Amino acid sequence: MSAPSHVPASRPIGVFDSGLGGLTVLQAIQERLPAENTVYFGDTGRTPYGTKSPETIIKYSQQISRFLLEQNVKMIVIACNTASATAFEAVRDAVDVPVIEVITPGAEAAATATQNDHIGIIGTRGTVNSGVYVRAVRKAIGKRLALAACCLNNPHQDATKVQILQQACPLFVGLAEEGWWDHPITQAVATEYLKPLQDAHVDTLILGCTHYPLLAKSIADVMGPEVKLINAGNNVATEVEAVLQKNGLLNLSNNHATHAYFTSDDAAQFQQLGSAFLNRPVQAAGRVDIERY
Amino acid sequence: MSAPSHVPASRPIGVFDSGLGGLTVLQAIQERLPAENTVYFGDTGRTPYGTKSPETIIKYSQQISRFLLEQNVKMIVIACNTASATAFEAVRDAVDVPVIEVITPGAEAAATATQNDHIGIIGTRGTVNSGVYVRAVRKAIGKRLALAACCLNNPHQDATKVQILQQACPLFVGLAEEGWWDHPITQAVATEYLKPLQDAHVDTLILGCTHYPLLAKSIADVMGPEVKLINAGNNVATEVEAVLQKNGLLNLSNNHATHAYFTSDDAAQFQQLGSAFLNRPVQAAGRVDIERY
Repeated sequence: MSAPSHVPASRPIGVFDSGLGGLTVLQAIQERLPAENTVYFGDTGRTPYGTKSPETIIKYSQQISRFLLEQNVKMIVIACNTASATAFEAVRDAVDVPVIEVITPGAEAAATATQNDHIGIIGTRGTVNSGVYVRAVRKAIGKRLALAACCLNNPHQDATKVQILQQACPLFVGLAEEGWWDHPITQAVATEYLKPLQDAHVDTLILGCTHYPLLAKSIADVMGPEVKLINAGNNVATEVEAVLQKNGLLNLSNNHATHAYFTSDDAAQFQQLGSAFLNRPVQAAGRVDIERY
Repeated sequence: MSAPSHVPASRPIGVFDSGLGGLTVLQAIQERLPAENTVYFGDTGRTPYGTKSPETIIKYSQQISRFLLEQNVKMIVIACNTASATAFEAVRDAVDVPVIEVITPGAEAAATATQNDHIGIIGTRGTVNSGVYVRAVRKAIGKRLALAACCLNNPHQDATKVQILQQACPLFVGLAEEGWWDHPITQAVATEYLKPLQDAHVDTLILGCTHYPLLAKSIADVMGPEVKLINAGNNVATEVEAVLQKNGLLNLSNNHATHAYFTSDDAAQFQQLGSAFLNRPVQAAGRVDIERY
């Protein structure tokens, strides 16, 4: 167990997900904040979370948070939509470092991007059933309207006219993990799942699962070029930077950043598959008996 | 915790799976042996096993076996191909009741059914990578050849000419759970996965995952009527009967059998989805904190 560091800013950012998908968020954080050290935990031994009950997801998220605190992290990023939707409050209330979830940044980006006030959301069944994105988008639109009242940067927006449509896409995770990122069957599945969103003329689509950016090309081909896809990773990275700055925790050193990777299952398999999600090699990964936490 | 019964034969048969798929095996057991009491455990909180490492699968299977022994079972049926492939020896060596796995009965049925000695096997990536079905089919063919030497019921079979081809079909579990049992996309996925098996002219195909019987129609449509699909459930039920009989454990009472269902996740969801797999209502299910075992 690490002792608290004398230089808090050099402590790593902790990022976790139910598996590999959160690596797409980590990638965005590493790109935006190259000086930051990071620790990633992927719960591949118990993935997926999307079909599990709230109590189970909360328990798993709390175990992982305890592990990350033991790694002396200065912040926890819940890089999993299902866990963000279900376990954010439970994690935030249990730890003494800032906690960031992936829902709000995506919702705010969608509220900013839409021109016709028709916003679509896709995610796992767990995320969709929780309704968390719908609430987050409504809240984000409320914020924008308050802003528009003073600076008129989106004066046509009217909260009562905003249409938000959700669609669960449970097969997308399997297709992403199968490597069928731009495959005719993925396009056929996307066509089936996304039809109600097309019929509703959404002009903005939130990719509400961290696996989905891997299928972005297939999703874009189905939705057409006029629909903006919201990949929350970039917005999360901006939020991470803002919260670190506000708390005086930005790492300003010129040292080479270190990135540690942990998994609840086979480390070699994590390294191999994870590299595709991270879009760079996962150099080494450690295995953790997460049920001990 | 139940005390050992005075009438061992009335003790239940324990059946477990990583989730819901094993209910297709339980259904076959309940149909063949209607007097037997049963206890089913579905590890829906940690499903799927197919992508997990051997150590993890062994640990989970041992936890479940301890839970089933606490339910005073007289036999354990590992109704999960991945766990059968990986954890059979570990479970068998740790308990004092007979243990039955789902690989051997299916392999023996395939060795009996093939006419052209070209056998196909489909399963999760874990089952396929383990090679357990290939070894089991080779062993079953060896047994048949020894038998043929005396009674000539399949005299053309020659172990050196038998061709066995495997194919991992990771998306089939998601398609089964999505309820797309006879859907054009399932047929398209099946067409893609099964092509190498068609090209190899297999005349017998082992459904090496307990979810796959739900997709039997789509699989049969792709493979054609001349290919025999082996659903191990029925063969497992025959084996259960034989082992109970040999051990004097067959329940000969006329009492109404009781069936108990347990899950590591949400019980209501288990009941709802499980009824489709069992092909009859799951009346009640209990939730178990399986990590305690």
